[in-house]
Amino acid sequence: VPPKVYLAGPDVFLPNATELAEHKQRICREHGFEGVSAVDVDRQAGARRGRRRGWWISQCNEQRLRECDLLIANMTPFRGPSLDVGTAFEMGFMRALNRPVLGYTNAATDFRQRTLAWLGKGWSKRRDGSCIDADGMLVENYRMADNLMLEGAVLSSGAEVICRSVEAAKRWTDLDGFVACVKRARAIISRR
Amino acid sequence: VPPKVYLAGPDVFLPNATELAEHKQRICREHGFEGVSAVDVDRQAGARRGRRRGWWISQCNEQRLRECDLLIANMTPFRGPSLDVGTAFEMGFMRALNRPVLGYTNAATDFRQRTLAWLGKGWSKRRDGSCIDADGMLVENYRMADNLMLEGAVLSSGAEVICRSVEAAKRWTDLDGFVACVKRARAIISRR
Repeated sequence: VPPKVYLAGPDVFLPNATELAEHKQRICREHGFEGVSAVDVDRQAGARRGRRRGWWISQCNEQRLRECDLLIANMTPFRGPSLDVGTAFEMGFMRALNRPVLGYTNAATDFRQRTLAWLGKGWSKRRDGSCIDADGMLVENYRMADNLMLEGAVLSSGAEVICRSVEAAKRWTDLDGFVACVKRARAIISRR
Repeated sequence: VPPKVYLAGPDVFLPNATELAEHKQRICREHGFEGVSAVDVDRQAGARRGRRRGWWISQCNEQRLRECDLLIANMTPFRGPSLDVGTAFEMGFMRALNRPVLGYTNAATDFRQRTLAWLGKGWSKRRDGSCIDADGMLVENYRMADNLMLEGAVLSSGAEVICRSVEAAKRWTDLDGFVACVKRARAIISRR
């Protein structure tokens, strides 16, 4: 039985989400994995509406996470300087279960640099060289791709976050980083 | 031995983070809990620098999460329409361990409404009434406080996200929502 890879990422919000999930699943198969996507869960939610529908989908996704052996996250920044919060939740979920968490981002900028760019003029430098935003809140500076809990989980899994600079038009469809993660996952799983 | 509550939230980035953590810990004690904060971890990281420092802190925080019985998250939106991604990671972590995940937000706006406001003019409505951003990516509409995985985890814990409208100046220091979560946690833990 091939190990199951949970496909985490805001890809599910794209108009061509199904096509993209199938592409990722094909890549998984080529490397001896089964790719598990959440793209079909919303359709299965039937007539449920509003909060009941959202809750039902969340329970379904949690169930799928528990059935998977590892996770590969699309960590590309989503509506702000950081990755999608649903993806962050799922990375933490799998990490708690001691299953490998891998990730790629199609933005190669350092988290600090990206956050400062995003804040525009709304930040300042303190005497010790650290930067704070307009609310006085610190900007992380660990030379990581995103918040330390996220990159830390990937490092603790024996991998590194794959960072590639992809032009805006292909930001959500380029899968070279995903392929690199699948290959790395193969090596990690073989060692277990 | 009082149950341990992991205090999750971007509070750690505030200039008065230690004071705020102590305030939360005092509230926990008053309700028979021990509050566990990550606010002192950075200091303990010693001479480690950059990515090694970030990774070390992440491992320390994961260890503290595993030692806690439940989690209360500050889900107030942070640098974008959603909560802090480190907090989202930690909510997923505790949820995977089947420990109660509670949360409060000092912004009472619905997630869809807040995301559309954040997108400014960068969104459009499709024929079916759903909204997409400039990249064609769907805006969630489940009448929740944030992404469905986050609110779903709180609902599955037998609680509800405490949403309160707090003026901007007190957005990061008002703890009424936190107190409500601690009281709810008391009821949940007593039932277990």
